[in-house]
Amino acid sequence: MTNTPRAAYFVSDSTGITAETLGRALLVNFPGVSFRHHTVPFVDSAEGAAAVAREIDRAADAGKEPIVFHTVRSPAVAQVLGEARATHIDLLNGHLTELEAALGTTASEQLGSFHTVGDTEQYFARMRAVEYAIEHDDGQSIRALDQADVLIVAPSRCGKTPTTMYLALQYGLLVANYPLTDDDFPTDGLPRTIAPYAARCFGLTTTPLRLSQVRHERRPDSTYASLAQCTLELRRAEDLYRRTHIPFVNSSTKSVEEMSAVIMQSLKLRA
Amino acid sequence: MTNTPRAAYFVSDSTGITAETLGRALLVNFPGVSFRHHTVPFVDSAEGAAAVAREIDRAADAGKEPIVFHTVRSPAVAQVLGEARATHIDLLNGHLTELEAALGTTASEQLGSFHTVGDTEQYFARMRAVEYAIEHDDGQSIRALDQADVLIVAPSRCGKTPTTMYLALQYGLLVANYPLTDDDFPTDGLPRTIAPYAARCFGLTTTPLRLSQVRHERRPDSTYASLAQCTLELRRAEDLYRRTHIPFVNSSTKSVEEMSAVIMQSLKLRA
Repeated sequence: MTNTPRAAYFVSDSTGITAETLGRALLVNFPGVSFRHHTVPFVDSAEGAAAVAREIDRAADAGKEPIVFHTVRSPAVAQVLGEARATHIDLLNGHLTELEAALGTTASEQLGSFHTVGDTEQYFARMRAVEYAIEHDDGQSIRALDQADVLIVAPSRCGKTPTTMYLALQYGLLVANYPLTDDDFPTDGLPRTIAPYAARCFGLTTTPLRLSQVRHERRPDSTYASLAQCTLELRRAEDLYRRTHIPFVNSSTKSVEEMSAVIMQSLKLRA
Repeated sequence: MTNTPRAAYFVSDSTGITAETLGRALLVNFPGVSFRHHTVPFVDSAEGAAAVAREIDRAADAGKEPIVFHTVRSPAVAQVLGEARATHIDLLNGHLTELEAALGTTASEQLGSFHTVGDTEQYFARMRAVEYAIEHDDGQSIRALDQADVLIVAPSRCGKTPTTMYLALQYGLLVANYPLTDDDFPTDGLPRTIAPYAARCFGLTTTPLRLSQVRHERRPDSTYASLAQCTLELRRAEDLYRRTHIPFVNSSTKSVEEMSAVIMQSLKLRA
C-alpha cells in the first residue's frame, strides 16, 4: 500500500481549470508523494456533490485518504462534498472571507461568474485573434500585418506556432509570425516584410540540440535537422535579434505560458 | 474618491496566470466595488518584490488600500512584497501548510515548478496538437482524421475554431473540425467523411440571433448572415445531432473554456 498513489481530486462548479491548475501547483511541492489526479468539473448541485463524495469515499476505502481541492461556491454544495472522507482544501471561500473583511462588505449572494460567460465582445476578440493567427501562421499571409499586436520571429521549429495561438486565445491579441530562413541571410537588418513593424517584433531562439531533436521529428536525418544547420541558423537569428534590438527569449527552458508572459511584459501588452 | 477604483494586484513569481484567474474569480463576487487590475509576473527576487511594493504603496497613497493576490513561493520574496501597504491574500502558502499537515511531510525546499517547464514530451504533444488543429481547421484536410481525439461538427461560425484551438493547446488533444454546409443536407446520417468517427464527434449549436450577428461581422447583409438562413441551418444541425446521437452544446451562453470542459467530460477525455 505504501506505493499506491494517493487520490487527488480537483472539484469545481465550473470548468475545473483553476482548481486543477492551483491544485497541481500545490502538489508538485511534494515530489516524494505519488498522486493520481481526477478533475471533476460542473459540480453545481447537491446531487452532483453527493455522487463525487461517494467516489471519493470509495478511493478512501481502497487506499490512503484522498486530498480534495475545490472551488465550489455554493455553501450547500460545498457542505455535501465536505462530508467525503478526505482532506478538503477550499481554494475559494477562505479568501472570500479575507476579502469581505478588507472591503467591509459581504460577497454577493448571487456570486459572480467564475469564468466570463457570454461576454460577446471578449468572445469576438478571441475568435478574431485565433483566425488572424491561423491566417498568419508561418508567414503565410502579409495581409493586415500592420494590425498585429505582436510579430514573432524565429527559425523553423522554435515554438512560434503554439506561442502565437496561446497569445491569441488567452489574451485576444493579434499575433503574426515570421519564419527566418536561409533567404533572409546575409542581411544587415530585418527582412523587408517585417521591418516596418520592428517595434512589435519578438524573437525566439532555442538550443541547437533541442532544435535538432524537434526537426528530426519532422524530417529524420535531413540536413534541415542536422546539428550543424541548427547551430548555424540559431547563431544567425540571435545575431539578427541583437543587431536590430529585437527582444528575444530562449524557448528551450520555458513553457508556452511563460514565453507568452515574457512577450506581453516585454512589449508592454499587459495592464 | 468614492468612485476611484481600488487597485488589485496579481503578483506571481511565474506567469501570473493562476494568480490572475483566481484573483479575478474572487473579485467578481463584489460587484458593487470597482477595481483596477494589474498583473505583475516573474517577481522572483527581493529587488523585484521591492519595486512592486513601491508601486503598490504609490497606489495606496493615491486612493484606497490596494488588494494584493499573490502566488510567490519564496518566503524571502513574499516578505518584501508583504511590506507594501495593502491587504495581502496569499493564494499558495496557506494551502501548502494544510497539505503538509495532511501528508505528514514538509513541502520540498526546492519547491516545484509552478507550470510544467521543459517537459519535452508535453511540449511536443501541444505543438503537434496545434499543428494538427491548424491543418484540420474548417474541414480543410481529411488526412489522419482517424487520429482525432475529437471531431467538432457545426455550421459555420458556431465557435468550432476557438474551441478546437483551446482543446489542442490546453490539453494536447488532436482535434479536427467539420463545417456543416447546405451540401450535407438533406441526409439521413452523418456526412460520409466523418461518419466512421461518429463516436468521437461533438456538435455545436447557438441561437439564430447570435449566429446572424457573428455572420454579419464577416459578411454584412448577406443571405449567409440572414436570420432565416441561420435559423434553418441550426435547426437542421440540431436535428442531425439528435438523429445520429451526437452530443452537442449551445455555444451562445458558454465560454470557450466551458465548452472545452463539457466536450472532454462528454467524450470521457479527462482523467
